[in-house]
Amino acid sequence: MDMKIKKLDEFLTTFYESATFPRGLAQSAHYSLLAGGKRIRPLLLLELLEAFGLELMPAHFQIAASVEMIHTGSLIHDDLPAMDNDDYRRGKLTNHKKFDEATAILAGDTLFFDPFYVISTCDLPAKMIVDLTRELAFASGAYGMVAGQILDMAGEGKTLSLEEIEQIHRLKTGRLLTFPFVAAGIIAEKTAQELEKLRQIGQELGLAFQIRDDILDVTASFSELGKTPGKDVLEEKSTYVAHLGLAGAEKMLTQKLSEVEKSLTEMSIPDDSQILKIIKRLELNHA
Amino acid sequence: MDMKIKKLDEFLTTFYESATFPRGLAQSAHYSLLAGGKRIRPLLLLELLEAFGLELMPAHFQIAASVEMIHTGSLIHDDLPAMDNDDYRRGKLTNHKKFDEATAILAGDTLFFDPFYVISTCDLPAKMIVDLTRELAFASGAYGMVAGQILDMAGEGKTLSLEEIEQIHRLKTGRLLTFPFVAAGIIAEKTAQELEKLRQIGQELGLAFQIRDDILDVTASFSELGKTPGKDVLEEKSTYVAHLGLAGAEKMLTQKLSEVEKSLTEMSIPDDSQILKIIKRLELNHA
Repeated sequence: MDMKIKKLDEFLTTFYESATFPRGLAQSAHYSLLAGGKRIRPLLLLELLEAFGLELMPAHFQIAASVEMIHTGSLIHDDLPAMDNDDYRRGKLTNHKKFDEATAILAGDTLFFDPFYVISTCDLPAKMIVDLTRELAFASGAYGMVAGQILDMAGEGKTLSLEEIEQIHRLKTGRLLTFPFVAAGIIAEKTAQELEKLRQIGQELGLAFQIRDDILDVTASFSELGKTPGKDVLEEKSTYVAHLGLAGAEKMLTQKLSEVEKSLTEMSIPDDSQILKIIKRLELNHA
Repeated sequence: MDMKIKKLDEFLTTFYESATFPRGLAQSAHYSLLAGGKRIRPLLLLELLEAFGLELMPAHFQIAASVEMIHTGSLIHDDLPAMDNDDYRRGKLTNHKKFDEATAILAGDTLFFDPFYVISTCDLPAKMIVDLTRELAFASGAYGMVAGQILDMAGEGKTLSLEEIEQIHRLKTGRLLTFPFVAAGIIAEKTAQELEKLRQIGQELGLAFQIRDDILDVTASFSELGKTPGKDVLEEKSTYVAHLGLAGAEKMLTQKLSEVEKSLTEMSIPDDSQILKIIKRLELNHA
């Protein structure tokens, strides 16, 4: 897994070291890309591809890099003063604190555009590239992440139903976490039925992630979290923990993760595969 | 031409009226999309396609809409307080003034992602879609518009050489104005050589646009311009007018436009075509 992250980081670094890019922009994008993200989305894609029996090629790392770029860009924008106004992310200064607000806006913007260049220039059949482009754009824009972020902000200070919370997270974090599953299916040329199954698994995992995040916000320390804990309570965000209580949220997380594990096993993915190890690491007693 | 704009506006409106999008996001994106843009990029594409003898299809309008979406998103972000801090655009409140800053950031973001969804779902051959995606992403991100914007901001208050000014505009506005030319070539299945020629024409026209903009900033009124004139001088921006003087800039504009007209004529585009009419309308004595 470390080898995969290393290769991914190399691609991201090489891309933004291109001599043609303005240094200020490239440095800012690169700072956030290399600011200690756990690379969960790229790893999900790459490990899934291996679990499907594919030998990893440079194109697969490019697709993996694309989703990480968009994820990183979204964190930069989410942290902006007009949005969540965060000074720290993963224990490091946020992009607009390290650089300035204008640079952070533009670094986010370029991290939204460049992945589509990366995808469209990778060595895969045209039809596959079109399908991957569609899924990535679907996961990111008005059908996905951006929609989730605006609903999340609109919901601050309000008491949301569990359904509304789920809708927000399905879009805000769920769609981009679903992408690796659908993308792996596209690249491994799975049937339409299998693709739908993979999409469902991704959605479940996306919710599991959010529940875990909500739990950690109340149970973890700054050093464990890399950011200020307790912010959800402070900002009166409706969370799974607020709704279900800590024990209820923990139970729901366990349930979602075991559903995901079961579904993956049903797709003939071996129990000792790296992809299942990633899922299992999300269990609370594991950490 | 009016019929084309009408069809384009219909597509943009229908897209953001989709029931699945959060209203706040869709309204904000739609507000700026319908805030009186002259649709120059979509029109260049559509008129070029007709000049190449193609019958316009819905897919062509979708590609035209895509570039307009990105252009609009970039205006929203450029107007933000951390960037150019503009209250008016085309005589209307800027997006963050009409809504709020967070909404404006997200509306821009979605207008950057959604075009790639639109392109990847349009009814064209997969290879063509990949080529169009690559060109649009190239025009927009670290290879293009965003790079130009960061160089532009870095250059404020400094005296730039004519070469540096040209580099900024080649990226900031030139790339996205070049896209319609390259895209039309791709869709009309022109040769690699013709594509390069089209790219050059687009770049020349892009610079002509910027020179024109610089001239109008010192000669036009608020009502003619739809925004506060004289801002370049106020912000100590290096402009073509500052470098060449008003007469020199006017001469350079005339020269660039006649080069573009000559190149288009050489590509067997008829003199009475709409595309040449658009170019001619950019001449100063015309307006």
